[in-house]
Amino acid sequence: MTESKTVEADDTHRHLRDVERLLTRLRLVDTLVHRQQMPHQALVENITHRQNLGRLRRKLDQLHPADIACILEALPLDDRLFVWDLVKSDKDGDILLEVSDAVRSTLLDRMDPEEIRAAAETLDADELADLAPDLPPEIMQDVLASLDQEEQEQVRAAMSYPEGTVGALMDFDMVAVREDVTLEVVLRYLRRFDALPDHTDKIFVIDREERLRGVLTLETLLITDPETEVGAVMQTKQIISFSPDDRADAAANAFERYDLVSAPVIDSGRSVIGRLTVAEMVDHIREESEAEILSNAGLREEEDIFAPVIRSVKNRWAWLAINLVTAFVASRVIDLFEGSIEKLVALAALMPIVAGIGGNAGNQTITMIVRAIAMGQVQPSAVWRLLRKELGVAVINGVVWGGVIGVLAWLLYDNAELGMVMTAAMTLNLLLAATAGVLIPLIRQRFGRDPALGSSVMITALTDSGGFFIFLGLATLFLL
Amino acid sequence: MTESKTVEADDTHRHLRDVERLLTRLRLVDTLVHRQQMPHQALVENITHRQNLGRLRRKLDQLHPADIACILEALPLDDRLFVWDLVKSDKDGDILLEVSDAVRSTLLDRMDPEEIRAAAETLDADELADLAPDLPPEIMQDVLASLDQEEQEQVRAAMSYPEGTVGALMDFDMVAVREDVTLEVVLRYLRRFDALPDHTDKIFVIDREERLRGVLTLETLLITDPETEVGAVMQTKQIISFSPDDRADAAANAFERYDLVSAPVIDSGRSVIGRLTVAEMVDHIREESEAEILSNAGLREEEDIFAPVIRSVKNRWAWLAINLVTAFVASRVIDLFEGSIEKLVALAALMPIVAGIGGNAGNQTITMIVRAIAMGQVQPSAVWRLLRKELGVAVINGVVWGGVIGVLAWLLYDNAELGMVMTAAMTLNLLLAATAGVLIPLIRQRFGRDPALGSSVMITALTDSGGFFIFLGLATLFLL
Repeated sequence: MTESKTVEADDTHRHLRDVERLLTRLRLVDTLVHRQQMPHQALVENITHRQNLGRLRRKLDQLHPADIACILEALPLDDRLFVWDLVKSDKDGDILLEVSDAVRSTLLDRMDPEEIRAAAETLDADELADLAPDLPPEIMQDVLASLDQEEQEQVRAAMSYPEGTVGALMDFDMVAVREDVTLEVVLRYLRRFDALPDHTDKIFVIDREERLRGVLTLETLLITDPETEVGAVMQTKQIISFSPDDRADAAANAFERYDLVSAPVIDSGRSVIGRLTVAEMVDHIREESEAEILSNAGLREEEDIFAPVIRSVKNRWAWLAINLVTAFVASRVIDLFEGSIEKLVALAALMPIVAGIGGNAGNQTITMIVRAIAMGQVQPSAVWRLLRKELGVAVINGVVWGGVIGVLAWLLYDNAELGMVMTAAMTLNLLLAATAGVLIPLIRQRFGRDPALGSSVMITALTDSGGFFIFLGLATLFLL
Repeated sequence: MTESKTVEADDTHRHLRDVERLLTRLRLVDTLVHRQQMPHQALVENITHRQNLGRLRRKLDQLHPADIACILEALPLDDRLFVWDLVKSDKDGDILLEVSDAVRSTLLDRMDPEEIRAAAETLDADELADLAPDLPPEIMQDVLASLDQEEQEQVRAAMSYPEGTVGALMDFDMVAVREDVTLEVVLRYLRRFDALPDHTDKIFVIDREERLRGVLTLETLLITDPETEVGAVMQTKQIISFSPDDRADAAANAFERYDLVSAPVIDSGRSVIGRLTVAEMVDHIREESEAEILSNAGLREEEDIFAPVIRSVKNRWAWLAINLVTAFVASRVIDLFEGSIEKLVALAALMPIVAGIGGNAGNQTITMIVRAIAMGQVQPSAVWRLLRKELGVAVINGVVWGGVIGVLAWLLYDNAELGMVMTAAMTLNLLLAATAGVLIPLIRQRFGRDPALGSSVMITALTDSGGFFIFLGLATLFLL
């Protein structure tokens, strides 16, 4: 027994550096060949080159598919495909599952149908269903045909559930026993397995019709006298189970709240049809929060950072277009007051401050309300209370910050009335922002929309146009 | 055996509605008493009132501490404290751990020292360490004194690691065995436990000096012939372990990548000192992404949505102040060109469009780069490649959107030169946004700062002032 090797948490960065170093060395030789300073024959026979290639291949062989996925995402396209060709084919399927959609398509483009088929055949039914939308249909057909009847049905079942549901995330591997056997029998039964399904922390107890009767945790199995019957120690109360139509978000919340490792998925007749595991939930939580952060910044999907320019433009154009429309509307509002600005040009310099503070405060309010809705903390009865509170915050901010800026405007332009209009406009725009910040997400929720999506654009549009209108309007009324 | 009860994923919402309904009924009676329409004596003896109170108490008794925590967060302060008083005291500790910091302080304010002490004493060492910063020091002293020597040391150890490290998240419960015993002995040993530590999916194999020799998964324990020795089947290669000083983020990434349920924490001498579990990692991932979304919107921390106005103002003022300063700077830039705006007032209406598109595009770029850095995908060697790509995107967006807006400006103001200046200014501001979007996070990373923090404010400040300067400057040069 030799000293055990420990994998540390930050190893991926190290692996990436190692791979990049080896790639650089290989490229150096390539460059020499390219410049005709070394005949091609020499390259192939070049010992250093072969050594480096061997080292790179061994390095890749040692790595976990998730680490290779991470490295592939971090490499520019040419290096990425070079490394992809070197990866052992038995890892192809797992790696394709791990990489982002954008990078997956670059890898699939490189593979011939036979390779794709081989990779797909190493996957479980639920994994295959995840990959299916990205595979060429005729290959998917072949792979499906190669599966047995039960697996084919599982793949079809998994693909039939829409994205964002429990059904789309569940797997089909599980261990089930009857309640009238002893734990000793269960222990003997388990010894006949070569491996247990990933993340097995409980065994499902089912009756003859495959209906869920209870769950037997591995903990109970291990700490209880083996002569005991399953039915006597299985858990039957408050078993957390899911329906395949449940929202994946709700399931992820339940996994987080109740610290679950796995949970049964049952149909309307209480038959066990699949299983959710914490690994899928962790991925889901991460993907959801990534998607939220990306969409807040106007990116439709995760981008391959080395994607061609045109693909990035496509990912980002919609958000820019929407924002341009709202900016154009704001510009028309300003244009209404052309005459006022001509008479008092200071208005042009001050108006972005009024619009800006409204946008910032509105985004604070809306972010807080959206989060509270997502966590199920906002009941319709709470609307007035929330609105009162946010209006209170707006008044304080308006008086304090509006006051400060008002005094500055007064001093800079030697015009006390201008300062007062500034303070009043900032306060009014903050009140508008607070009202919209509470109502926009709640109204969107009432109409069954995602309260988060596009809320930021809407409130910024409102506080920009509204801010310009309020400020220039007040100025026109009181100053000119 | 009766039909097993199933807890569904969306139950928290239902629980919250139930609790609110009961609270409303209780409040109705209260209101009657308050209005003197019912003597106080009658209230106490009122059967409906007592029934409702009993129902509410039973409802709360059935709920998981995490569900109660969620309900408490969703209730306004008076209802929250009313419910908190009804909750069985043996759940107090777990509930305090689950609620947000803001809500926790409202609950602790309500408890007398004896209750806090009782709640604290139900917790494990690592949980106590989490709660410690919020507890009154003299109570913490008492609780510590009531623990045995080993637990005291564990609490102190857990508190000694800074937030965001593995040490601050690890727990101390674990099962360890020696490698020279058979699995049969391990099975017999486990049967002496009343319960295994939460999330035990593997047993740590240690030598006499408590150094980690390997891990024995429960899976291996269950599927292998019990006559086998631990040393023969334990995993010794590529065991994923952490040091207490590792960053929690890196550990969470490793849990996600390698689908871990638990992992040993070892010191520099390879002695096992604690354990990380996926439950803590899920909480960490969720908290981190929440914190990022909140800080992107300028909220310093999670807010109790029913917090008093003044506490919300404190949570939000810093961001507003910073944004006001940058808006003020932009306003001064505009002021430089007062003369130009006076001559051509259309400039005032068009300038926010130039600033706006720069801010939006810059935020897209910076969000993408920050995410790539966080995932370890950006090597210093990639800077030029990324910059070239983002500049390419900026040129395309500038020509397309700048062109569209330029034509609109030309038509609206019947001024072709103004349209051309508009297009040129938008393109230049987009190039500025792309450059800053790539460089700001990379430079912050180089200097050891968090690339995400405040990046959005910085780029918006730059594209606002820059956009006004570029547009008004070009206009002054070419139009006047």
